[in-house]
Amino acid sequence: MLKEPFILKMSGHAFDDEELLLSHARLIKELWNDGHKMIVVTGGGSLARRYINIARKAGANESLLDSIGISVSRLNALLLASILSDIAHVVIPSNLEETFKAWTTGRLVIVGGFQPGQSTATVALLVAEYLGFKHVVDCANIDAVYTSDPKVDPNARRIDRISTSELINMLRSKTVAGTYDLLDPWALSIAKRSSITIYIINCSSPNNLVSFVKQGLNAGTIITPT
Amino acid sequence: MLKEPFILKMSGHAFDDEELLLSHARLIKELWNDGHKMIVVTGGGSLARRYINIARKAGANESLLDSIGISVSRLNALLLASILSDIAHVVIPSNLEETFKAWTTGRLVIVGGFQPGQSTATVALLVAEYLGFKHVVDCANIDAVYTSDPKVDPNARRIDRISTSELINMLRSKTVAGTYDLLDPWALSIAKRSSITIYIINCSSPNNLVSFVKQGLNAGTIITPT
Amino acid sequence: MLKEPFILKMSGHAFDDEELLLSHARLIKELWNDGHKMIVVTGGGSLARRYINIARKAGANESLLDSIGISVSRLNALLLASILSDIAHVVIPSNLEETFKAWTTGRLVIVGGFQPGQSTATVALLVAEYLGFKHVVDCANIDAVYTSDPKVDPNARRIDRISTSELINMLRSKTVAGTYDLLDPWALSIAKRSSITIYIINCSSPNNLVSFVKQGLNAGTIITPT
Amino acid sequence: MLKEPFILKMSGHAFDDEELLLSHARLIKELWNDGHKMIVVTGGGSLARRYINIARKAGANESLLDSIGISVSRLNALLLASILSDIAHVVIPSNLEETFKAWTTGRLVIVGGFQPGQSTATVALLVAEYLGFKHVVDCANIDAVYTSDPKVDPNARRIDRISTSELINMLRSKTVAGTYDLLDPWALSIAKRSSITIYIINCSSPNNLVSFVKQGLNAGTIITPT
Amino acid sequence: MLKEPFILKMSGHAFDDEELLLSHARLIKELWNDGHKMIVVTGGGSLARRYINIARKAGANESLLDSIGISVSRLNALLLASILSDIAHVVIPSNLEETFKAWTTGRLVIVGGFQPGQSTATVALLVAEYLGFKHVVDCANIDAVYTSDPKVDPNARRIDRISTSELINMLRSKTVAGTYDLLDPWALSIAKRSSITIYIINCSSPNNLVSFVKQGLNAGTIITPT
Amino acid sequence: MLKEPFILKMSGHAFDDEELLLSHARLIKELWNDGHKMIVVTGGGSLARRYINIARKAGANESLLDSIGISVSRLNALLLASILSDIAHVVIPSNLEETFKAWTTGRLVIVGGFQPGQSTATVALLVAEYLGFKHVVDCANIDAVYTSDPKVDPNARRIDRISTSELINMLRSKTVAGTYDLLDPWALSIAKRSSITIYIINCSSPNNLVSFVKQGLNAGTIITPT
Repeated sequence: MLKEPFILKMSGHAFDDEELLLSHARLIKELWNDGHKMIVVTGGGSLARRYINIARKAGANESLLDSIGISVSRLNALLLASILSDIAHVVIPSNLEETFKAWTTGRLVIVGGFQPGQSTATVALLVAEYLGFKHVVDCANIDAVYTSDPKVDPNARRIDRISTSELINMLRSKTVAGTYDLLDPWALSIAKRSSITIYIINCSSPNNLVSFVKQGLNAGTIITPT
Repeated sequence: MLKEPFILKMSGHAFDDEELLLSHARLIKELWNDGHKMIVVTGGGSLARRYINIARKAGANESLLDSIGISVSRLNALLLASILSDIAHVVIPSNLEETFKAWTTGRLVIVGGFQPGQSTATVALLVAEYLGFKHVVDCANIDAVYTSDPKVDPNARRIDRISTSELINMLRSKTVAGTYDLLDPWALSIAKRSSITIYIINCSSPNNLVSFVKQGLNAGTIITPT
Repeated sequence: MLKEPFILKMSGHAFDDEELLLSHARLIKELWNDGHKMIVVTGGGSLARRYINIARKAGANESLLDSIGISVSRLNALLLASILSDIAHVVIPSNLEETFKAWTTGRLVIVGGFQPGQSTATVALLVAEYLGFKHVVDCANIDAVYTSDPKVDPNARRIDRISTSELINMLRSKTVAGTYDLLDPWALSIAKRSSITIYIINCSSPNNLVSFVKQGLNAGTIITPT
Repeated sequence: MLKEPFILKMSGHAFDDEELLLSHARLIKELWNDGHKMIVVTGGGSLARRYINIARKAGANESLLDSIGISVSRLNALLLASILSDIAHVVIPSNLEETFKAWTTGRLVIVGGFQPGQSTATVALLVAEYLGFKHVVDCANIDAVYTSDPKVDPNARRIDRISTSELINMLRSKTVAGTYDLLDPWALSIAKRSSITIYIINCSSPNNLVSFVKQGLNAGTIITPT
Repeated sequence: MLKEPFILKMSGHAFDDEELLLSHARLIKELWNDGHKMIVVTGGGSLARRYINIARKAGANESLLDSIGISVSRLNALLLASILSDIAHVVIPSNLEETFKAWTTGRLVIVGGFQPGQSTATVALLVAEYLGFKHVVDCANIDAVYTSDPKVDPNARRIDRISTSELINMLRSKTVAGTYDLLDPWALSIAKRSSITIYIINCSSPNNLVSFVKQGLNAGTIITPT
Repeated sequence: MLKEPFILKMSGHAFDDEELLLSHARLIKELWNDGHKMIVVTGGGSLARRYINIARKAGANESLLDSIGISVSRLNALLLASILSDIAHVVIPSNLEETFKAWTTGRLVIVGGFQPGQSTATVALLVAEYLGFKHVVDCANIDAVYTSDPKVDPNARRIDRISTSELINMLRSKTVAGTYDLLDPWALSIAKRSSITIYIINCSSPNNLVSFVKQGLNAGTIITPT
């Protein structure tokens, strides 16, 4: 059960499916009204990929491609804030300082990306670290981290608990599957240096989020800072 | 032929078709490099409608729905600026004052929407007025304004030239078709008070834009301020 | 009686008469301290007209003339905030997003105009819509909307209640007097789309404001969204 | 003759008289188009005094009274920029950093006040110092600094040239008249530390400004940094 | 005993000694948690002097030298805010308006300098005046204001209480020692016009601060507004 | 010889030694006036370490420690801009968008850090990528990258040229010395994805910088994108 404030990272995937998005919005509101304080970080999803592909074909540089992805993730943040406008800070912060100010208002803060060259996973960890939060809930569309891709490898083993250091090593040696969209070494190194625990939750079924936050159930993989 | 700086309003339609968008980008660059100075105003298109529909179903207020549309139009502006990054101001202005500052740099400025409660057509006219431009080229996906919907009414008459006052009256009495997405009374009243001429150009074929700007050919409808 | 938060639109007229202004300030404070939450939108008044006239003679464009009017309305907002500094947000917001942030502080927020091309009546409706307020109190220097100008036409009829749609039609056909400075079609169309009720209150006598807000008495004309 | 960039301080007095203002605007434009680069700092004049008086009666604190004066001086700056919009930076900077950015655009920059607790004379000197200008032209409504008030004292002596140090001493001992609205010790101490020369020019007759800048004639009092 | 909100001016001196700084931080937190509301204004200290000296040798203008000092004082403010991050507003305001907004959050606000040409003592008074505070506690590294330098003059007399007017006169005639780093005429004139009392407290021993704020003991010199 | 615009990364080390700093400033100015366009990114140096240590002892979180380092690097940027104020953009940008705007002015732009969680090396690469620069000159206080620490290992081999991929691998396996302060995997991954070449230049002797930029001589290690 999470009693302290946490970051909820919602992958862009959630914005590709209208029903899934509305379910998530409903559950976030339920958690909020039950007193669970959080900041939501939204990804860009397939829309970001579509726009980035167009710009890449036209020769845009990588930094601007990232800017486009950020712009989509912020659009997603605004969409969610609009749906939750009775509890949300409807102005979307665009950096850590604005996020701090929004957080002081006591409203539900929702942010997208901040800057080229970093994933929204990294944004989630940076916000947690800046505000002193110790928990990041990664609402993903997989059920856990595996030792290899379970779709391919019959020996793939589901990982229940792993340290950030071990996971960084596994990512480097590419012996771990399914984390590409979830976590990158930079995000993990921030978790490590600031003792932040990351929980991978399978949000294909949104109720997992509620049962995890309220009762501590159904975590896929717990990534511990040590 | 347009020798003075002008506003190029690109409907969101152009962003629904990748090939059309890249063609437009190429032609804008060609015009710019030929010395035609302009500011581009982009719309939101079908993506804006999709996102707005999701938020509307979830009960978001009209102001936030407009904010979502603005966010999409600004995403479109950033996409176009990324494609044209060698000539464009890649930071997208979000109000008239920022647009002025961007314009002083001598780079191609691209903006989306500014504020809830106004169309991108109105933004196009507001920018023209603020900077003292006298021409707005409305790059549309129809060939002209008609007296009624030509798809329905065999007596529909294509209008080559009309004054803003007459068009405002026609819009009020709903005897004119095809302008809904193009122009609204507020945009027209700004054109009128500041003597700005609006040119409807059929950009389904992007070359129309070039032949209009370079040679004054192929205007669909000219809306004159008096 | 107004129990929900509302917008109080103060015409610039109130700033032309020092005694009237101080009376209004006193009553706003009384209402605020009685728990009536509101955002005040101030107009430009005769000072705006004087400054605009000078710039017009010198050939300034309409957009800059509007900017001058906005600057005066913001000066008026600052004057009122200074008088009410123990309850007011003394930094004057200049757009919807800043207004939202100021509103989250729990202080009395006072704004002037935002952008060229829109009246302060429109600003009042835009702020109401953005924040989800359903009531705009238009503190005017007439007692009601009439079917024609009562100073000229002995058959002029005072309107107690009218829908936004009907009023828009009357404004278009120019059969209604006295609304020119109060309301414009754009403001009314926002009221309509977002179900906001507008109350015309005669504030030449400031106590009307208090009796209206506290007891629901003395409304001049009620403009209903449907 | 002034060949280097200079600050032109226009007292708020110039904004109390429409004809005088338009004359000044015409001459500033003439100087600018002749290649004389300058930044204009505008005061608040009688309008500032009127607004400040209202707020003072209502008990506003001194800081907010100054804020009101700043707001009026910025309104005056916008009025002048609107009149000169073909050469001016129509967005009015509100601090030194924004003034620097505006100056890099090559347009005529016009500012009002910046911050409570400082006169527009001080703003003029601060801008000069920040940008490395060595000349401040104080366009006043008196012809020179005098040893005492010439309207009262038949022995009053007109001062043609004085050092900042001497003038500071005279101001402290109150043996000098007519500088109250012109200069204060803080402004003079900045002139002194940064070797900036201040020229008092009688702008009741605007041509004095042109003959001073173009030919070095008609300076009332020259205040030298040493 | 100070029950109302006050400004705590910490001289840059406190940042030259790590132990002293941490003691101050601890005591500020203790006072804050006891319900004493304050805004802290930090100076630049010896680090500011070192950086300014380098730039001065290289010919930087006085305004930029001041900017460097401001930058150091803001760095010091951030250092203190980081140490006190559980109660502090960790985003450092850079002008009066941002300070107001930070103050509305209810957190401990810490600021450095604002603008070239003014001391941090002046900033302390400007913030007090803007927010309506009536007390400035000047946490200094001397025990009081003296009639002359007690290290040099055996007849130096310690001043327990003095009015701002008298102190301004003494500063002008240079008959008072030890105030150079504490107070300047501009800061004092703001105290005078807004009836703000300044308390010089010897913070070489940090407990003096606590005994002064909690019990009204150990003030060195009280500078009264009249 | 570098003819295209480049990033000059100055380690904080240069700010620890006044003479070295002034030499660098002189040479940067010489290069600039010879037509070599660049953006300078400054580090924090020993001052950053000192301040961070104080905050760390007091328990500040890692994000705020990084913020303190950024604040020092920005102070260093301002110091350098003040020394070079006749060619520099004296307002220091704090993110990529502000850097773009500053760059459009044609002045020498100097930036420090941007955001917690990233090194100034990463900032250097991010700015290069955003603006489309293809060269980063890393002005370091070592002469090259070595296979191991030459002070310890007699078999240490100096590396003249290495690819970003190889260097990332070496960094991971810790078989390379002396890069800790220079480069991190994130910075290198940006260089790789955007084909940016990094040149390690020994700036303990500042003339190396000039001979490298003007004649292509004296590069320590060249890190190629492929």
